[in-house]
Formats: sequence, structure tokens, C-alpha cells
Amino acid sequence: MTRKRIPVAILGATGAVGQRMVQLLENHPWFEIVVLTGSDRTIGRPYGELVRWILDTPIPERVANMVVQPTEEVADVAIALSALPTDVARAMEPRWAERTAVCSNASAYRAVADVPLIIPEVNPDQLALLERQRAQRGWKGCLVTNPNCATISAVMPLKPLHDAFGLQTAHISTLQAVSGAGYPGVASLDIIDNIIPNIADGGEEAKIEAEPRKLLGNVADGQVVEAQIAISAQVTRVPIIDGHTALIAASFAQKPSPEEALAVLEAFMPPEIVRHLPSSPERALIVHCNGDRPQPRRDRDAGRGMSASVGRVRACPVLDLRMVALSHNTIRGAAGGAILNAELLVASGIVS
Amino acid sequence: MTRKRIPVAILGATGAVGQRMVQLLENHPWFEIVVLTGSDRTIGRPYGELVRWILDTPIPERVANMVVQPTEEVADVAIALSALPTDVARAMEPRWAERTAVCSNASAYRAVADVPLIIPEVNPDQLALLERQRAQRGWKGCLVTNPNCATISAVMPLKPLHDAFGLQTAHISTLQAVSGAGYPGVASLDIIDNIIPNIADGGEEAKIEAEPRKLLGNVADGQVVEAQIAISAQVTRVPIIDGHTALIAASFAQKPSPEEALAVLEAFMPPEIVRHLPSSPERALIVHCNGDRPQPRRDRDAGRGMSASVGRVRACPVLDLRMVALSHNTIRGAAGGAILNAELLVASGIVS
Amino acid sequence: MTRKRIPVAILGATGAVGQRMVQLLENHPWFEIVVLTGSDRTIGRPYGELVRWILDTPIPERVANMVVQPTEEVADVAIALSALPTDVARAMEPRWAERTAVCSNASAYRAVADVPLIIPEVNPDQLALLERQRAQRGWKGCLVTNPNCATISAVMPLKPLHDAFGLQTAHISTLQAVSGAGYPGVASLDIIDNIIPNIADGGEEAKIEAEPRKLLGNVADGQVVEAQIAISAQVTRVPIIDGHTALIAASFAQKPSPEEALAVLEAFMPPEIVRHLPSSPERALIVHCNGDRPQPRRDRDAGRGMSASVGRVRACPVLDLRMVALSHNTIRGAAGGAILNAELLVASGIVS
Amino acid sequence: MTRKRIPVAILGATGAVGQRMVQLLENHPWFEIVVLTGSDRTIGRPYGELVRWILDTPIPERVANMVVQPTEEVADVAIALSALPTDVARAMEPRWAERTAVCSNASAYRAVADVPLIIPEVNPDQLALLERQRAQRGWKGCLVTNPNCATISAVMPLKPLHDAFGLQTAHISTLQAVSGAGYPGVASLDIIDNIIPNIADGGEEAKIEAEPRKLLGNVADGQVVEAQIAISAQVTRVPIIDGHTALIAASFAQKPSPEEALAVLEAFMPPEIVRHLPSSPERALIVHCNGDRPQPRRDRDAGRGMSASVGRVRACPVLDLRMVALSHNTIRGAAGGAILNAELLVASGIVS
Repeated sequence: MTRKRIPVAILGATGAVGQRMVQLLENHPWFEIVVLTGSDRTIGRPYGELVRWILDTPIPERVANMVVQPTEEVADVAIALSALPTDVARAMEPRWAERTAVCSNASAYRAVADVPLIIPEVNPDQLALLERQRAQRGWKGCLVTNPNCATISAVMPLKPLHDAFGLQTAHISTLQAVSGAGYPGVASLDIIDNIIPNIADGGEEAKIEAEPRKLLGNVADGQVVEAQIAISAQVTRVPIIDGHTALIAASFAQKPSPEEALAVLEAFMPPEIVRHLPSSPERALIVHCNGDRPQPRRDRDAGRGMSASVGRVRACPVLDLRMVALSHNTIRGAAGGAILNAELLVASGIVS
Repeated sequence: MTRKRIPVAILGATGAVGQRMVQLLENHPWFEIVVLTGSDRTIGRPYGELVRWILDTPIPERVANMVVQPTEEVADVAIALSALPTDVARAMEPRWAERTAVCSNASAYRAVADVPLIIPEVNPDQLALLERQRAQRGWKGCLVTNPNCATISAVMPLKPLHDAFGLQTAHISTLQAVSGAGYPGVASLDIIDNIIPNIADGGEEAKIEAEPRKLLGNVADGQVVEAQIAISAQVTRVPIIDGHTALIAASFAQKPSPEEALAVLEAFMPPEIVRHLPSSPERALIVHCNGDRPQPRRDRDAGRGMSASVGRVRACPVLDLRMVALSHNTIRGAAGGAILNAELLVASGIVS
Repeated sequence: MTRKRIPVAILGATGAVGQRMVQLLENHPWFEIVVLTGSDRTIGRPYGELVRWILDTPIPERVANMVVQPTEEVADVAIALSALPTDVARAMEPRWAERTAVCSNASAYRAVADVPLIIPEVNPDQLALLERQRAQRGWKGCLVTNPNCATISAVMPLKPLHDAFGLQTAHISTLQAVSGAGYPGVASLDIIDNIIPNIADGGEEAKIEAEPRKLLGNVADGQVVEAQIAISAQVTRVPIIDGHTALIAASFAQKPSPEEALAVLEAFMPPEIVRHLPSSPERALIVHCNGDRPQPRRDRDAGRGMSASVGRVRACPVLDLRMVALSHNTIRGAAGGAILNAELLVASGIVS
Repeated sequence: MTRKRIPVAILGATGAVGQRMVQLLENHPWFEIVVLTGSDRTIGRPYGELVRWILDTPIPERVANMVVQPTEEVADVAIALSALPTDVARAMEPRWAERTAVCSNASAYRAVADVPLIIPEVNPDQLALLERQRAQRGWKGCLVTNPNCATISAVMPLKPLHDAFGLQTAHISTLQAVSGAGYPGVASLDIIDNIIPNIADGGEEAKIEAEPRKLLGNVADGQVVEAQIAISAQVTRVPIIDGHTALIAASFAQKPSPEEALAVLEAFMPPEIVRHLPSSPERALIVHCNGDRPQPRRDRDAGRGMSASVGRVRACPVLDLRMVALSHNTIRGAAGGAILNAELLVASGIVS
């Protein structure tokens, strides 16, 4: 892997998630940004001049000087990381997928049958869909998606519990950071000293209720058989910058004690192929025993924003178990998730 | 009621809840503060000099000049509003109750069999316990309590639903304001840009899981028969000043449709005796149809902080119904709740 | 004044300041809203349906049902309160002023020679400009402006000091609330856990440096002779909802001691004509002796948002005096300021 | 320097600054923590068990297992970094200085004539005081201090300007983060949606007005001749976690144009001995040309929290120049400042 780095395009590079992709790929051992795409307003101008950079590290100088290209022009790159808005993603990602491997953070194709929805630590086996995807669609490239930023906070701890005990129902209440809405996103007049008990008019909840079924499903004959889990999601926007918290209550086919659940969570180990990817954190899932953790400001950056955290694992008077889960929504839950998927494509030999 | 006003003592007048009591009783048509008690540090000094006043209206001048007395010395007042810390409440409230009607916001006696736990709009009938309380304990006064500040956010909408459909189980996830922790309470270093997923090391959740059973119980033969409801509470502290939000999912003996539930919520009317109390809001329960309400900053002050709000009433994929409830934690959920109980005692003829 | 109320239009009624005007005019003893204007997007629709209402009291029902009209069509009203954006104000206010008395919060005409820039407590005498304004422009109506929301925080305490001691130079550092930027205004991603040390690319500072010279000037021969004061402004945006704080250091022709300055501030009394206007607060200027006041959350609502506050009056090692000033930026500094100007026009007999 | 690391004690290791020292010394190339001291409550217990850790990286495991010792018992270490409270510092630092080099963040001895007050980039020459300090006091060790956390934000850019143009007067208005008050420090009820326009009842301002005179003074005959600068400070506490902002207006003996000032700021280079210290940032002073920087959240972590930032350098209508300065208050302004002083002692050969 010390050879020439793999050329990568970032689609929709000027938004909040696109910026995170730029930030995370600085000094990436495998990938090199060679194309940035943007909307009409931005085309033909140097990225550093037009972007309203909102992160707390400077724009990498090399990238700042790159000229933004139209998303409509498919470039000759091995991988395209997509931070496109949903509607643009719907139109453009298939065009890029004809020639290149698209790792998308957009929701447009997450639910489509032949499109893998992947968290590498959870279900890398959904890559098996790609054979059919390419055959059916005649693509030389492919399209892989990562889940919603709040879904991932919940699914990371639910995965090992599902494997061990058979998840049946889950209540998921979320407290989501403002960065999840992009930039400019949530008005400060709406959120300082306030909570908004809805996101995207129910749309966010629909994703959190649907995506875990695909993520925790089984792959058979090149198809995903969704897990039969009933999920109820209630979301809120809260006045914090980064980090989505999920309060989870869940029931299982085989009811575990809190101690059994903790043992399973602490023993969680991602599949071998995932462990040594460049963006894989040392610990995929950090289990907190301190009774007031995880907390967004203190835990979101664990594993450079790629570790998920879980704490307060205890019995539930109504269902079986309760816990508090957290992950960084724009790193683990968006830009970093898409990059990890791209790394998985490389490690799997699908992209070379 | 235009006669001489009823003399009232505030026990523990210097803390956050005590200050709210002072604020809310300014210009009260029935009550007049004649005694303020405090801890050793404060005794013998004028209230206005020693109190670290944290509210956004000035200290009423008459009260500012009052000299703080020891809580140990029971004063000759008709009503004592207690904002004492739990342990002090445990020791002192019975001594005051020997002679005076104590309306307590403390948790010390909420669960005791002969002590009413009352939200006037919900269960004024628990006043029936007082006869036995006085007989058993030989008190000329009495002791009445109001519930935890987060409990009330949830119980206000659950009451009419329970009456109509028979509440069986409830998941309650809360987002609680920092004022709920008193003053100085939560350190800013702990809560700016952060969430703390626990309060009082599980103690807050224990109250929210237990108190609704007593509040929604039946009184028979001078005793409360608790409602058989299984409740699961998961609490968080969030960076807002006032207003506790509760995300509720609930199941019922007779499953209502969201429309049926909404009709019941909108038709809710407190008992006749409660409607015209001085601190009763015009609308006890405000039902929001706008999909992103209630919000703490925009709804906590409804009805001068005494109205409860509920919104997003909809079906639940796991239980039957979901909704978002909100009330002002230091007014409706604490100081105002205790005052409303005191007004109920007067209107019921128990205090005169 | 118990006669029929004066018909009023609100120009630009859907923005943050327009909403405050609607809120403040509910139950106004003199004025009645009869026209609301808005941009193309809003015309012909009921106000309550289209407005993104951001305040914490409900939209007055009567106003909610009013249909929004185009700002281009001048209506037959006695008074037009303008909350228009600068460029629209520049085009539309003169058209309305041909027939009606325009009280504008916009900055477009504040610096124009024949347009009064008025804080009623400070310089009601600038109404004298109107005679010339009407004569020169052939208007039957007139145009009166109120200053920038941060200017007023500083000028309220500087006025009596200027009268007594002759203000010569002032350093003004401001900490301004997000509501000053309108809605949606400042992105939460830019301001939570952050400060922005600039507003409008220096434009805000230019206003704060210029407007006090006109406000504290003298009227002679129907013209304003500006006060010769050198002002340096450094502004910041801070993560609070309402209330602009100004840290002021000032020098005077006759150097006052802090005690002399305090005496003058405490003795400040608005002109007789202003004291009994409906929106005049009981105390125009509240002088704090407590060393950590004024504070935005605790003092912005004094006098229903119309009182200005000042504190920490003390000597300055470089100039003569220092102090901290505060006022509510969308009430006293915008909507309430425009309404108070309208009331002044009525009390002065200019509008009837 | 690859030899055995220098043994270091942290005095007052459990507070907010002590924790930062622990954090910053993890993997330090020269220093190794061998002693932690604390108050009575903490003695004899493992640091990891008793500390209320408030930072967003985990406690280094080796340190977590160290047993806390009484500050009264002077340990055999080469360097003691002091994060003691002022009064304890006053009593204990001289005792440690008898045997060891004390680098103190406390204010107790900053103003004392034979105690260096040092920012290494600004005035390493004050180390020359140590000869006299040791001779007079009979110490084998020594005592060196770093300035107040807000002072340093202002002095970093003022140093090169003073050298070039001769600073005469300065107005400094600060917006200070809550971490500057230690833990628990500022109550969230006091600061969410609020500003407090005072710190330590004027004490913070006294430091900011006095310390720059010593920092920018000259050393002659083993004594500091203070710079004759008149400084006016007005401080505020604002609702942000880390990063102190200073709005500065200044006059100079030779009035510079903004362009000349910018050129001097950009050319600033610390003394040679400082540039290669382990904690020296690549750029001691970052000059921003973007009109809305520096911002605390986006710039405080520059140079791992050790770079100072300055922006908005422009002319002032009252004095000569204005600018906005920022630095991280608990790293550059406290723990990191003390560590950098310790590194300077090593590089200067005073500690070996």
C-alpha cells in the first residue's frame, strides 16, 4: 500500500459533510483527492476561495487550490465519495457509478434492494450485493451507502446484542447535534436555550426505524433479508455542535441480563478485514461503566471520531435492556463512514 | 377572598425553588409571605442581602427586607411552602405539619402512604388521605406533596389518556433543564455543548417510574391504590435554562388511535374546584398540532409557566402511542405546583 | 385617547423585527394593526399561515388571520412602522412617507440630513426636522428613524453624561445577541460555543461610530449640528438570544468622578412628553450597583424590554469613565423603539 | 534529550489546570510526572479514582494509578508545575522552591520583584532575575510564573508592536471562557444565554492592567523596569468552553499604519532558544486576514492550543490601532504556559 495513492473525487465538497471528507483525507495513506465537485455557483473557482469553511483545522493547502468541477462531469477516478444532497445524489450517483466506485453518504439509494447499506464493523457482507448490482445495471463501478448519522449511534451497540440475543423491538430516543443539519442548517434563534422535538418532519425517524432492519439483515443469494425488528424512534435537535446521543430500550428473543449484555458489548470485535483499515479506530465500541457517560463533548472524538460509545447498560422495567449510545455524527456518522466504506472496497479487492 | 390575606411561610427560601416561590407570591391574591426560613448561614440577615437571586425579575422589596429565620422554629402561619432539601425536609416538615399545612416540593414524603401526592388537575381526591394522616399522627396541620419536576411533564397528558384508555406501560425519555438541579447546580463546564445522560445517579429515574403510579391511582377507604403501570425512564440533562421535555411512548388497555387520543387530550378539563384557583392557567394542557412543538424556550412560559404542553401525538410501531410533553420545571414542576396545592387546600376548606 | 384607535401598517411584518412589532402592538391602547406587508412570496396569504413565528407568545389571533399585502401598495393608514430590509426600505419608505407617518427601524435614511434619528428619551427635539422634510419633499406624511440596536445600548447612559460633562471620546465594545441578525440569521454551527468578532463586515461598527453623533447633536434652524465625539466600536456576536451589551470607556470635557457620574445617571429623567407614552417604561435607565450587572438574561426584559440598564460605573486608567450598558435589542433597540417614536409623533400632535 | 526524562511534580493536580498539565505531559519528550499533590480530601488515593476528570481525552493510565501526595511534603523532583489555588500557592511554592524549580500558574508571586513573570516568546530574559532570587532567598530551586490567562491573549500581539512602535496605552475588553474559572466554576444557571460583565470582582481586570507592564518591561541589573503603559481592562464571562478573546485598542509612541502593524505581526519570531522547545507551536502568532477571525471554537486549538491568534488589525478613531486577539486559556494561558516555562528552564541550563 505504499504505492501510488488511489485517486478520489469528493462529490458535493463544499457542504458540511464534504468539508469533513476533505479534512479526514488529509494525509490519508491510501487516498488522494484529485477532484472536487460542487453546484453551479462554485464551478471553476478555487475551493479555498469559495468554501465557507466551518471546521476547526485549516483547509489543506493543496486542496484549497483545487478548482471545483461540475458534479455532472464524471471524472476518471477510482472512488467517488458522495456528500451530495438527496435529490442531486439521486440524479448523479448512478452516472458516476457507471465508471467508478461511489461511496455515498446520501440517503437516496440506501433502501434500494441491490445497493449495499454498510457499516464495515457491522455488515461488510452486504458487499455481496455488488455482483448483482453491476450485472443488472451494467455498471463498471458500483454504489455503496452508509446509514443515517443517528442510525449508526444505535446500531453499533445493537449489532453484537442482536447476534447474541436476537433483537426484537427497540425504542430509540435521540438527542442530535446541530451539525447533522448541515450548514447553515439550524438557526441559532431556534436552538440556543431550546430543543426542537422533530427533524425533517418525521423523515429522520423514518430512517432510524427502517435502516437498522437492513443493516442487521442477512445476505442470502445476493439479497438482503431484513431483520424482523420493530423500531420506534423519537428524535430531537439539541444545542450542541457534534455528537448524536441515542437512548435505547430493547427487547430480545433471549432476554439477557445486563451483565450478559455488557459482556457481549465488551467482547465485540469487528470482522478481521475491517480491523486494520486506515480509518478503523483502535476500539470500534467503547463501553462506559461510569454512570454519566457517554457524553457528546467528552466522547465524540474518541478514536478520532470513529469510535462509538455505549454506557448505562441496565435492565428495563418495560422491555429487557436499556442503554445510552453515542457517536460523532459528521465523522463516524457521515464523512468517516463513507471513507471507511471506501477503504473496505479497497481491502476487499473491489477497488484497486 | 378580599379579606385579609393568609399568612404563609417559605421553608428553604434562599434556594432556586424558594426564590421562585417568592417571585410567584408577589401580588398573590390570597397569600402573603410572613416568614422566610433558611440554613444557619442565613439566619438573622435580611433576605435581600444574603440571597444569590437568580431570577430575571427583581426581588419584591418587602420580602427583601424580611429577616430570615431558622427552619427549626415553627412559626404561626396557616401554610408553609417547603422548598427544603430532602434531608432537611425529612426532619423539619413533620414538625411544621403539627401546626400548619405544609405544601412540600421535597421528595422526602412523596411515597409515604398517608401523604397525598397531588397535581390538582390530576388527583385532588388524594386530599382524602389527610383525615387519616391527622388522626394517625395527631397533627393539627397536614403535609401535602407535589411530584418531581419531570414526572409532571409526563403525567399531565397521560392523565386524560389513562382515564379514557387505561395506561399500561410507558417509556419516558427526558431532556431536563439545568434549573432542575438548583443553584449552583450543574457546572457550565459540564453542560455547554454537552449532554449528561443521568441525573442523581438513577434517582431521578426512580421517581419518574414510581410517582405516576401514585398520582394516577385510586383513593379508596382513605388509601391510595396505585395504578398498575410499568414505566421505564431514561433521563438526560441538556444545556437549556428552564423546561423539561418528555418523549413518551405508551400502551393502553384499549388501544386508541392518534385521533382518539388527540380528541381526549383536547377535551381535558381539570376538576371544577381547580379551574378557578389563582394559579390555575387558563388552559391546563395545551395541545400542539404544529409538528415541531412543544419547545422549551417557546412553550415553557405558557399560562405564566403553569400550562403543560403536548404535541406530536402519533402512533408508535412498538407500543400504541407516542407524544412529546413539556412543562416549566421550576414553576409548574416545583414552586408553582406547591402553591397550587396550597390554593387547593384553601378552596377545599382544609386551610382557612 | 379612549376614542377609536389609530390605524397602523407594519411594513415587512414577517421578519424578526416585524414579528416583535406585531407582538408589542397586541392590546396597544392607541394603535391598531390594519395592514401587514411582506415580500412577493407572502402576498395574499394569511399572516398566521406563512410567518415562521419565532417568539415565545402566540400570534395574536386577529393578526394571524390578516392577509399580507405588497409593500409596494401604499395603504391608507396614519402610521407605518417599517421593519423592512435596508434596500427595500430605501425604495419604499419615501413612497409611504408621501401619505403617512413612517417610523422606520431600517438604516437606509438614518444619516440623511432632514430625517430625524430619534430615541424619545434622548432627542425628541429632532422632530423639528420634519417641517423642512415635508416642505422640501412635498410629503404629507413624514419619515422618522430609530437608531441601530447596539447604538441605543450605549447612548442611553451616555446622554445624561454628555449633557452634564460633555462627551468627547468613547470606546464601545459590544457583545450582541443572535436575534440582532434577524431570522434565520446566525447559523447555530457558527455560534454555539463560539464568538464571531465582526458583524456585517464592519458595517455595524460604522453605525455605532456615526449614529451617536447625530443622536447627541443639537437642532438649530431646523438642522442637526452633530456632536463632536470620536467613537471607536468593536463588535462581537455571542451565543445569547436577546440583549446587546456595550462595554464603554469615555472621556469628557469636564472629567467626572464615578460618584458624580452615578449621581447624574440616577437622576436621569426623560422629557415630560415622553414619560407617559404607552410604551415608556417606568424607569428609562436602570442603574445597577451590584458589581456583576447588567446581564442580558436577567436585565433585558426590565420595563417590558424598554428599560436600558447600566452598571459598573468606575474610573478608567486611560480615559475618564468606564461602564457596562445593556438593552433589549429587538424591543428597545428595534420594534419597541419604532413604536415609541410613533407614540411620540402622536403625543406631539404630528399624527392624529 | 533521549536520555532519562526529567522527574516532575504537579502541585494541585486535581483541578482544571492540574488536569490540563497531566494531559499535556502525556508522552512529553523531556518530562515525566512522578508526583501529584492534592488537598487533604485527596491524599493517599489513586488519582484516577478521586479526580473529577473534565477533559475530552482519557486520563493517562500510568497517572491514573499514581497515589496523590500532600502538597506540604516537598518531593525530590527537578521541576514542580504549580496549579495551586492562590492562597495555597502563597504558602507552598516557596517551600518547594527551596529545592526545586517551581513553574507556577498561580498569581500569588507574579508581581514580586525577584520573581520572573515569563511568556517565553515575549520575555525569556527575565530568567536573569533568578540569580538574585536564589541569592537573596537562599533557594537551590527557583520560582518562575506565567501570566493570567487573559493577559496572554493580549500580550502576544502587543509584544512585537511594542518593540516596533512603543506601546503607550491600551483598552482591552475580554470575552472569557468558563474554563477560566476552574471546576465547578461558573454555574450553568448563570451563564447559559447570558453574559457576566465582571470576574473576581475586578480582580481579573487588575491583573490584565498590571501584568503587561512587567511582561513588556526591561531587565537591567537583575531587575525589571516596568514598561510605562496605561491599560484599561473590561472583562466579561461568556458561554463558551475554552478560549479567551481580547478586543484591543492601543496607542503608540510612533503611530503605525495598520499595514505597518500587520507587517510587524506577521514577521514576529520568538527568540531562538524558544523556537524548538517541545511545546512551542510552529507559529507562535497566527495573523488572520479573514475579517471574522479569530474565533474561539475555530482557532483556540491552533498549534495544539499553544498558538496565539490575532485579526482585524485596523485603524482606531480614538487611539491608533485596533485588533482582536485570542488564545486558549487553559493551554497557552495556563497549563501549557507553565510547561513552556519549564522547558525554557531546561533549555537555559537552569534545570538539568
